Amino acid sequence: MSVPASAAASAGSAEDRLIARHFAPLASHPGALALTDDAAFISPPADHDLVLQADAVIGGVHFFPDDPPEQVARKALRVNLSDLAAKGAQPLGFLLTLALPAGTDGEWLARLADGLKADAQAYGCPLFGGDSVRSLGTVMISIAAFGSLPVGTMVRRAGARPGDSVLVSGTIGDATLGLKLRQDATLAANWTLAAGAADQLVTRYLLPQPRTELAETVRRYAHAAMDVSDGLVGDLAKLCRVSGVSADVEIARIPLSGPARQAIATNIGLLEAALTGGDDYEIVFTAPPDRVAEIESSAASVGIPIAEIGRVTEGSDPPRFIGAGGQPLAFRATSFSHF
Amino acid sequence: MSVPASAAASAGSAEDRLIARHFAPLASHPGALALTDDAAFISPPADHDLVLQADAVIGGVHFFPDDPPEQVARKALRVNLSDLAAKGAQPLGFLLTLALPAGTDGEWLARLADGLKADAQAYGCPLFGGDSVRSLGTVMISIAAFGSLPVGTMVRRAGARPGDSVLVSGTIGDATLGLKLRQDATLAANWTLAAGAADQLVTRYLLPQPRTELAETVRRYAHAAMDVSDGLVGDLAKLCRVSGVSADVEIARIPLSGPARQAIATNIGLLEAALTGGDDYEIVFTAPPDRVAEIESSAASVGIPIAEIGRVTEGSDPPRFIGAGGQPLAFRATSFSHF
Repeated sequence: MSVPASAAASAGSAEDRLIARHFAPLASHPGALALTDDAAFISPPADHDLVLQADAVIGGVHFFPDDPPEQVARKALRVNLSDLAAKGAQPLGFLLTLALPAGTDGEWLARLADGLKADAQAYGCPLFGGDSVRSLGTVMISIAAFGSLPVGTMVRRAGARPGDSVLVSGTIGDATLGLKLRQDATLAANWTLAAGAADQLVTRYLLPQPRTELAETVRRYAHAAMDVSDGLVGDLAKLCRVSGVSADVEIARIPLSGPARQAIATNIGLLEAALTGGDDYEIVFTAPPDRVAEIESSAASVGIPIAEIGRVTEGSDPPRFIGAGGQPLAFRATSFSHF
Repeated sequence: MSVPASAAASAGSAEDRLIARHFAPLASHPGALALTDDAAFISPPADHDLVLQADAVIGGVHFFPDDPPEQVARKALRVNLSDLAAKGAQPLGFLLTLALPAGTDGEWLARLADGLKADAQAYGCPLFGGDSVRSLGTVMISIAAFGSLPVGTMVRRAGARPGDSVLVSGTIGDATLGLKLRQDATLAANWTLAAGAADQLVTRYLLPQPRTELAETVRRYAHAAMDVSDGLVGDLAKLCRVSGVSADVEIARIPLSGPARQAIATNIGLLEAALTGGDDYEIVFTAPPDRVAEIESSAASVGIPIAEIGRVTEGSDPPRFIGAGGQPLAFRATSFSHF
């Protein structure tokens, strides 16, 4: 295998050397050995568990081939950081496997590394190694991220209890509306959005904001949690299913950004897209109602708004999303799926 | 992201459910939560470091599209286990990212999972989670493997000292000769190999034998080590370069299997292929000469032959591979590269 972890020390190809030059600066942890070895090592914090997870993005599936490579890179890392945060874990580092088509442009690769480096530093999540291989298709960026938290405290999907409040961070639906605008910029006029408002939605799609700073709050208070990556409706349904509960959510309490609210006001059909579309990268979690004030205060201290959107109930039905008239809405599709 | 880790609990597509059904049995560690969550957790052994590494295999690059999926799966995991072993680490588990083309056959996927399951059990390396995505090219199997060893004892490439013995496990060159036979079966007759001998070489290519049982010996005795995946000549050169040393290797002492020896006897040109070709997945390491007897005994106790092939020397030249006449050989290519 030709690996970034070995490339710095190898007599390998020009592309190997290019990868080593661009990616070694991301390997700031001493255990990464500046990517000169086959593997890396790390001493996990004492009395802590490791939290492990992997997510990949594919050119033409998860990003557009002409997306800026810095943003592609940051998105690839951030979708992993989002999962760690939702589990209550602090990032420790990541492994990167790049599958690149023949003739991948050196400048593109340098910009990819720049984007990853910026976020590796910003989120305290350095590169520990990985692999580079030849793709016979499009670019693939596969990341395995690992974090840590005190032993036994990973927040699971299972654990929601009847009576819990259902909480969600930030705002919902921006990214899926941003994707629509990215695909058809003329929609901004239909939705009566000023350029700045449309850009705000597109940016939410291009560059997720993982809620790393909310991880400790989630860890301390949540009975169950997951990141909202495949749509609030479907993701909350998954959480409820493994918890063996149901939930009632008041749609009017679901937090929407100004631009999303305005777009939905011009076309109520967009509400379903906002609640079932993917790429929010917020955290949905459940916690005792008498802790909500503390949670809001804890989240506010790191600048993250929290909305209480409903209540966990007994039962095995999917959560009900209740409209202004008191009636639950039915959704055509409950979750975004990449297949 | 649609993840195996979430698929078991998701209302996702048929393919998500298929992956969950096939791969959940590999997730035997309680912290993997039977792949029903977004992430997994593990309590690392006390006073141990984690060793982290990733390697990917791509259909059409690292394996043939019609290779049996069980073997593809096992090779994908074993190349990772080989790196852990060469660093002295015992496997703890792995994350799996599968990129699959549209319409991937369910039977193929089931056989892939079967192969992975066999080796996850055999090597004590359970699945902790991962991701499944749509490939626009060929199948890609990206694995991040993690192991553990007592704090501060990971064996590095850097560390070889002048005067050290150069040691290698098993036999060298079988896999690269096996690959040639896989590509052109008529070569077996040219090389005067019986069917069984040819099969032995092909099997070495198809199914690496990671030296997991040698890890503890390497950890206890080696000054420097790496797995031989890109050819002995090039890999030893990498090890020497980061160690700031050179080496003299006697070609006559490099261990060859019976079939490899016979093939080379019919065509001396194959010697260069054997020493510079990839996919050996043996371990090359250096250690004090006065420990070689102990090392051989320790390796023999787990059934692995060790050969002392040369000596580390001062200098910065690439290692010299010295032929029967006492002259160093020159190689056209020193290392296999995937680029």
